[in-house]
Amino acid sequence: MQKTTRRSLLSSAGLAAVALPTAKALAAGHDHAAMGHGTANGTAPNGAGDPGMAHGGAAGPTFRAGETVDHVRNGFHPTELLRDFDWGRTRRLPNGRALREWTVYALDKEIEVAPGVSFPAWTFNGRVPGPTLRCREGELLRITFINGSAHPHTMHFHGIHPSAMDGVAGQGAGLLQPGEKTVYEFDAEPFGLHLFHCHAAPLAEHIARGMFGTFVIDPRAGRPDADELVMVQAGWNTTFDAEGNQLYHVNGIPFHYVHEPIRVRRGELVRIYLSNLLEYDPVNSFHLHGNFFHHFPTGTSLQPIEFTDTIAQVQGQRGILELRFPHLGQFMFHAHKSEFAELGWMGLFEVVA
Amino acid sequence: MQKTTRRSLLSSAGLAAVALPTAKALAAGHDHAAMGHGTANGTAPNGAGDPGMAHGGAAGPTFRAGETVDHVRNGFHPTELLRDFDWGRTRRLPNGRALREWTVYALDKEIEVAPGVSFPAWTFNGRVPGPTLRCREGELLRITFINGSAHPHTMHFHGIHPSAMDGVAGQGAGLLQPGEKTVYEFDAEPFGLHLFHCHAAPLAEHIARGMFGTFVIDPRAGRPDADELVMVQAGWNTTFDAEGNQLYHVNGIPFHYVHEPIRVRRGELVRIYLSNLLEYDPVNSFHLHGNFFHHFPTGTSLQPIEFTDTIAQVQGQRGILELRFPHLGQFMFHAHKSEFAELGWMGLFEVVA
Amino acid sequence: MQKTTRRSLLSSAGLAAVALPTAKALAAGHDHAAMGHGTANGTAPNGAGDPGMAHGGAAGPTFRAGETVDHVRNGFHPTELLRDFDWGRTRRLPNGRALREWTVYALDKEIEVAPGVSFPAWTFNGRVPGPTLRCREGELLRITFINGSAHPHTMHFHGIHPSAMDGVAGQGAGLLQPGEKTVYEFDAEPFGLHLFHCHAAPLAEHIARGMFGTFVIDPRAGRPDADELVMVQAGWNTTFDAEGNQLYHVNGIPFHYVHEPIRVRRGELVRIYLSNLLEYDPVNSFHLHGNFFHHFPTGTSLQPIEFTDTIAQVQGQRGILELRFPHLGQFMFHAHKSEFAELGWMGLFEVVA
Repeated sequence: MQKTTRRSLLSSAGLAAVALPTAKALAAGHDHAAMGHGTANGTAPNGAGDPGMAHGGAAGPTFRAGETVDHVRNGFHPTELLRDFDWGRTRRLPNGRALREWTVYALDKEIEVAPGVSFPAWTFNGRVPGPTLRCREGELLRITFINGSAHPHTMHFHGIHPSAMDGVAGQGAGLLQPGEKTVYEFDAEPFGLHLFHCHAAPLAEHIARGMFGTFVIDPRAGRPDADELVMVQAGWNTTFDAEGNQLYHVNGIPFHYVHEPIRVRRGELVRIYLSNLLEYDPVNSFHLHGNFFHHFPTGTSLQPIEFTDTIAQVQGQRGILELRFPHLGQFMFHAHKSEFAELGWMGLFEVVA
Repeated sequence: MQKTTRRSLLSSAGLAAVALPTAKALAAGHDHAAMGHGTANGTAPNGAGDPGMAHGGAAGPTFRAGETVDHVRNGFHPTELLRDFDWGRTRRLPNGRALREWTVYALDKEIEVAPGVSFPAWTFNGRVPGPTLRCREGELLRITFINGSAHPHTMHFHGIHPSAMDGVAGQGAGLLQPGEKTVYEFDAEPFGLHLFHCHAAPLAEHIARGMFGTFVIDPRAGRPDADELVMVQAGWNTTFDAEGNQLYHVNGIPFHYVHEPIRVRRGELVRIYLSNLLEYDPVNSFHLHGNFFHHFPTGTSLQPIEFTDTIAQVQGQRGILELRFPHLGQFMFHAHKSEFAELGWMGLFEVVA
Repeated sequence: MQKTTRRSLLSSAGLAAVALPTAKALAAGHDHAAMGHGTANGTAPNGAGDPGMAHGGAAGPTFRAGETVDHVRNGFHPTELLRDFDWGRTRRLPNGRALREWTVYALDKEIEVAPGVSFPAWTFNGRVPGPTLRCREGELLRITFINGSAHPHTMHFHGIHPSAMDGVAGQGAGLLQPGEKTVYEFDAEPFGLHLFHCHAAPLAEHIARGMFGTFVIDPRAGRPDADELVMVQAGWNTTFDAEGNQLYHVNGIPFHYVHEPIRVRRGELVRIYLSNLLEYDPVNSFHLHGNFFHHFPTGTSLQPIEFTDTIAQVQGQRGILELRFPHLGQFMFHAHKSEFAELGWMGLFEVVA
């Protein structure tokens, strides 16, 4: 049965041996624990004998208040990723145009995706999601890609570019073998929120292993000043069964923004660059508590399409969300798919004065 | 196999013991029966030995012409729910502002969800969906919530409000234990079509048991006069396996609007407040036969986004549909997901002069 | 387990007996093969012992470079379908209005859906998708439908029409038995991209067997000149388990447009009429490499809703995509659902000067 499989033990070759509760207990434990209602021994105060609480009484390794992954050993920190825009290096070409350059490498890396749970990820620049490459409409972009992984990879960008720069097998540099490098070069167009991912076969696995990142092209005139945040939605298929995900997240680590709420200022414009790279599941969603946002799908128009608190995106879709928080305090955000939220795809905003 | 499980017998602890055909026969039986082609013994006229009709020849307990659930014992009637807007009580505050108040209670209740099939629901005000709370932009809202259920619950509203009024565990009144009560108070903003649901863990079960309702905030200037209808899409997981739904519906009772078509007048403006609260399945849809509607997602703009006959919504999404029927007669509406339609999520409009 | 079942052997009663590799090998083999990296014996150059390539090393019957289905025996060719608009026959009515007429028949037909894999399809006019019926807003339409199949069928149109013309059991002509015929007559409204499909029960099977087609109503003033293409997304459930699809495609034949890329001219306006008729799966998507398009959902507005490279559609949704290719060369298009792409839902544009 699919979902039973998906929710099963977080065990597989390559994972650290840890004693784990069943995933169902694990899945449902977050809400009490996250909100301060968990008890030390993992039993909810009123769970006993209550079928409605049967799944809600235990805290597991996915979420247990105060227990977090080792970000230093992981080499990246989801709180820092939020506002970490990689503008690369620029210089002026003889014709006056700006050339922007980055070097990106593929790297195999063990990532602690939940306390005590290690996952053999494939990454761009040693982090999941990869770097947020940011540039301005009309620039010439040059990305030197070095495959430092033990597997063949590519960088495939969403955007407008020649086929030789598409980062797929059989075109241009094609598939890069371990140790190989290439340069992707193309114009920065159109402005908007885009993304990149590895396009080596099997595509599903290369994405599910972590090979994706955000690619922002600013409009020539820029956008209004804002506190800008990057969020990439994805999952971890810790059983490698290619049937679904055992953990869900934004920016690599399930429940991270419950442990460390995202601090934003009351009344300030907040702009979220939200992409969905979730594999195996058909659609993902984003819901914000107690507030509404303007939604700019793909970020290619300066006019929002909707004012709402819930949007859906299939894999490859992305959009810009703009909002201001009128009230102080903590506000949850998560998939409005209970299963995803309970398995890690949730977080908190903390609004301060 | 997931779907086999989901479509399996409508049996579980808590359900009345009834003799049931296989769900596949049940699932496919509706169309003939609904449209008057079923025969008394449940065998379609041309089904024998025809592989194309193998699933289409029997009528089961989900839909059998003339057999309906006991709405009186259920305590609510889907035909009445359609146009039942709960405006609460209002009074003028000293500063001239309107205060609008409701009292809502949680109640455990056995609901006959298909003829002979009883489901142990958790409800707001003893009905599924809960009451349609309606107000006007800018009013001060006060909802007294009393937990008369044997399980802990909350009311979580989609809308803009302080975190203490968010109806989640650990914030404000937090989780309400049986017998407890609280008051949620916040401003009516923004105008649009919103919703509320219980946010106790496990969230999926609390929603799947029936704890949700519609929350309408009218624009200050109102909307054009119309025949207004409320529809809430959801499902019944009668096996409690948390893997999917055995029955699908709008407004609580599968196939209800096939038994009792929704009467509307030719040429009159019809406005549908449509929300999706379906658990377990990734996305739901609405398709109307023989006609088109204007779609206002989340109802937060007075300009429609699309003129179509089919829309999709993930859980938590909702939208206003406006249309006029140019022709008399009966017009089906249902999910454009055959499985959902065949298991109850379909109905009929009857257009009269 | 659902997906294991879905990806299982392409075997069932009615299929030609062929020796088949496992579907997982089959599913992942395309990318290398399609892009010229496959080797003669189906082993990828670097697949041995590489877990990342475990699924990517074999080419199977679904895609093997140079091996295609017999289009002549099938009786339709996906490359020709692309630009094959059936305008029917027209004559002027006494009142000056145009009457447009078609004759459409249902026909059971064995279709070779992958090399050596025969599927017992049910079709409109002997092809999958059925004919692309095209007309102009405001005309009177008359479709004579003859059921030449061994199974009962209907034609149900998306559009505005009287209930007697809705093509559902119990209304108007209702279900047409084998050998029966009827005439559907209604006005061409509203302009946009619509569709038709059989609405006999079990609905899922009648759609999954291939009974659907595109229905285009041009605006009175027409649309700007363009190279116009029709694409209908669907799947083949070769195991008849009604649980999912073993093959995915646009216009009937998986991977067809990889074998025969769609030739378009650089700089020319291209207009794609894209419909989703996929059964069993909850949502489908379309992603274009290296380029962006304007999206007109349902085609009912002349203003696009989004400029993007990825859209999602549930069954019954459809939209017009408009774009120009600035660069020469080959550009992939496929579902941004890796599973669908790997099982056939992908193709190539070839942009020429």
